[in-house]
Amino acid sequence: MNLVALAGGVGGARLADGLARCLPPGSLSVIVNTGDDFTRYGLAISPDLDTVMYNLAGLAHPINGWGLVDDSQQMIEMMRRYGDEAWFGLGDRDLATHLLRTQALHSGKLLSEVTAQLTEALGIKSKILPMSDNRVATMVETVDRGLLEFQEYFVRYRWQPVVKAICYDGAELAMPAPGVIEALEQADGIIFCPSNPVLSVEPILQVQGIRDTILNRNVPCVAVSPLIGGKAVKGPAAKLMDELSLDASSRGIATYYGTLIDGLMIDTSDSDLASAIPQKTLATNILMPTVEERVRLAHELLDWVGKL
Amino acid sequence: MNLVALAGGVGGARLADGLARCLPPGSLSVIVNTGDDFTRYGLAISPDLDTVMYNLAGLAHPINGWGLVDDSQQMIEMMRRYGDEAWFGLGDRDLATHLLRTQALHSGKLLSEVTAQLTEALGIKSKILPMSDNRVATMVETVDRGLLEFQEYFVRYRWQPVVKAICYDGAELAMPAPGVIEALEQADGIIFCPSNPVLSVEPILQVQGIRDTILNRNVPCVAVSPLIGGKAVKGPAAKLMDELSLDASSRGIATYYGTLIDGLMIDTSDSDLASAIPQKTLATNILMPTVEERVRLAHELLDWVGKL
Repeated sequence: MNLVALAGGVGGARLADGLARCLPPGSLSVIVNTGDDFTRYGLAISPDLDTVMYNLAGLAHPINGWGLVDDSQQMIEMMRRYGDEAWFGLGDRDLATHLLRTQALHSGKLLSEVTAQLTEALGIKSKILPMSDNRVATMVETVDRGLLEFQEYFVRYRWQPVVKAICYDGAELAMPAPGVIEALEQADGIIFCPSNPVLSVEPILQVQGIRDTILNRNVPCVAVSPLIGGKAVKGPAAKLMDELSLDASSRGIATYYGTLIDGLMIDTSDSDLASAIPQKTLATNILMPTVEERVRLAHELLDWVGKL
Repeated sequence: MNLVALAGGVGGARLADGLARCLPPGSLSVIVNTGDDFTRYGLAISPDLDTVMYNLAGLAHPINGWGLVDDSQQMIEMMRRYGDEAWFGLGDRDLATHLLRTQALHSGKLLSEVTAQLTEALGIKSKILPMSDNRVATMVETVDRGLLEFQEYFVRYRWQPVVKAICYDGAELAMPAPGVIEALEQADGIIFCPSNPVLSVEPILQVQGIRDTILNRNVPCVAVSPLIGGKAVKGPAAKLMDELSLDASSRGIATYYGTLIDGLMIDTSDSDLASAIPQKTLATNILMPTVEERVRLAHELLDWVGKL
């Protein structure tokens, strides 16, 4: 069974890890949002790619979900000594990733090539595919602070500014990275991970050909809701959907994705929403703080996709 | 009293620190070798500039003499995980320096400008001047491994290859950095720090105008020997001088510098060499493992220079 997962940050990475642990080696491809990518201290940083990669390598920080386990921030402390604000807290071990990626990109390699090299070096058997090798920058138009780059909104201002609109700069010109369309076309099932639909999944869908390929699929596509009881498990999904006048609930997630998905996995506590969701639903415990929970959720999901 | 010191690695940096502690703030300029500079992981690294800067900031590793105190090597460990040989052990805190410098150089700043910014941010009152803003690369021709870049010779192969010749690639075209000639011309005294004459001081002398300005001085110029009893206090000075058929002793240091220096400070244990040295000599304890010893040596040196 070839499976494709679309993933953004921590929730997506955790489910991808669960799926990778359930499936035969090499049968999972994860298409990852790169709209959050940015440059800091001259380093090319791809937070979502790294979060997925570290989770699939078993190296992710167990509590944060992003960054590396047992990492430190000595470089950042020294930056502060130099008078730098250092609002983006890069880990020391994490820097190896950014240095290797930056150097490879400067030497003319594509992001997809670097990603393949790094994942292989960490012994990851699944394919991690950036959505595109072209620059796409998720920009956040806020009420008080104007137009912010994604990481300024997300990290510097801790997603507190009220959002008026989101745009995906460069998306209309971005081509899918090599292997992305092929993976979708050859998949036996497609999963939208429990990632922020507007900030993590939508940038992927905006890349040329990806939305259409999913719309034209003849295999099941299901999403796992990132919301429980109208609140995000992690991050700004509910707050942001509310500010954008979207229905900040699992029902709203179903509406947002529409015919892109055949089914939505929701939390047991949201079971009462099932009747208001036109797609098929499966209610279960969608929290996955531990590896065991990820594997359990991935198994339930794979069983369900197999029956759709 | 305006003093100029020419410095390379750890010995030079330690004496420069001693001098800075003895002199009124702002009256010391240190002209630093950049022939060891190189690029690693895309980072512009200036080992001697950093060693001088960290020592003058009171942040140097107390035992090694280079690198930062309380630093770690998490980035390097992760590099190894990615399969990189990682033979050059960059510290995590140290990375902040390389990142800021690299970013500034990429944005079009000169090495001398970046160095001034970094030293000011660390509260250093002395001037730290790279010998040149142009690239000079000390290259080491070895018997067994052919032509090596300096850091390959020095760090990767731990200065074990037998050296046939040294060359200073780019030196004939290199212009002194802004302030270098002015500092020498306005100095009341010039010090050659106890650095390797061939690897650390000679590259500085090779830059256009520097050797001639020193030869034409009308103020005292003295060197502190980097050798005691025919052995280097630290590093390859004696081994290298021997391989290059130079006299690997304080007498050889005096011969090497010739009329560039008026006097040579030698270790008490080398007093018997004084009669064979044409320049003036002062024998004292030239070891300076502690800050107190650096200050003591700097005081003796300043007293001596004042009398020449």
